[in-house]
Amino acid sequence: MSSERYSIEEAIIYSHKMTQLSKALWKAIEKDWQEWVKPFGLNINEHHILLIAYHLKGSSISEISKFGVMHVSTAFNFSKNLEERGLLTFSKKENDKRNTYVELTEKGNELLEEILESHNVDNNRVVNGSLKLKELYGKFPEFQDMIAVIRDIYGDDYMDIFNRSIQNVVKETVTDPNVSGK
Amino acid sequence: MSSERYSIEEAIIYSHKMTQLSKALWKAIEKDWQEWVKPFGLNINEHHILLIAYHLKGSSISEISKFGVMHVSTAFNFSKNLEERGLLTFSKKENDKRNTYVELTEKGNELLEEILESHNVDNNRVVNGSLKLKELYGKFPEFQDMIAVIRDIYGDDYMDIFNRSIQNVVKETVTDPNVSGK
Repeated sequence: MSSERYSIEEAIIYSHKMTQLSKALWKAIEKDWQEWVKPFGLNINEHHILLIAYHLKGSSISEISKFGVMHVSTAFNFSKNLEERGLLTFSKKENDKRNTYVELTEKGNELLEEILESHNVDNNRVVNGSLKLKELYGKFPEFQDMIAVIRDIYGDDYMDIFNRSIQNVVKETVTDPNVSGK
Repeated sequence: MSSERYSIEEAIIYSHKMTQLSKALWKAIEKDWQEWVKPFGLNINEHHILLIAYHLKGSSISEISKFGVMHVSTAFNFSKNLEERGLLTFSKKENDKRNTYVELTEKGNELLEEILESHNVDNNRVVNGSLKLKELYGKFPEFQDMIAVIRDIYGDDYMDIFNRSIQNVVKETVTDPNVSGK
């Protein structure tokens, strides 16, 4: 690593630039996400946990922590809240007594589908902020460079879940007459 | 807006994708940032406020809120902490009694420069995660698409400050013998 591959100056400038950009991007997305799920009495961590449990068809707390990019204690505490609301159940597996698993209840499943159906992207900041690129490219930008950086940081299994969750979203939106009709 | 310019399906998929990617990117950057400034007894909001006041050579609370992408009350409360530590001063301007301005004290300036000099990018997650792209492109990725989206969301004045702060970082790292020597 280091001096042969990059100068300290360019790395510092790049790091500074990425910090500003990724904070701005994330804060815009976070606001949209909060506004979307708040009417259902959830914060974004809780909604993320439900989503991960849904996409993985049951998930361990450490998987939630990893794929939700949240601390293990955050994953556990918010999962606990969701369990108390009857939206998911905790369990141990026969062959893996050390890890706690969570699974959506029917109520959790129904709530999550209701939330997904309510997703209104008309005022979505990032969607609207990307429309000029969409006009230019004929499609929304792909951000392949960003994906390459994230793959390098988080590894292939993170990207597998990422791709699986995108596939699920594709299936839901294409088969759901409420969203595919427009 | 809407149906002529994009289908609901593709917008939902794009929004979902950007949410996962930008959260993962920001959380990696946030960790690096926290580890960098923690030894100086600062959190990232406090450090961000010092940086903005430094780059703008004095700044109003609403500018800090805007360019730091944080709530006005967050900007005010953390600025208050910094004032109590003697790192910045509050003032009103003769021609603008409504806004509170903050300016770095000499102590604040010295601390900020010390922090900037301590910036070690060797273990920086995003720098390391971008090295394969750097090898491929001959330089760190530019993320022009991401900049276009952020410009559209936050406006030209946000980008002006972004560019000004990058210019300042360039000047500091190029003129500082501690970082340019390597």
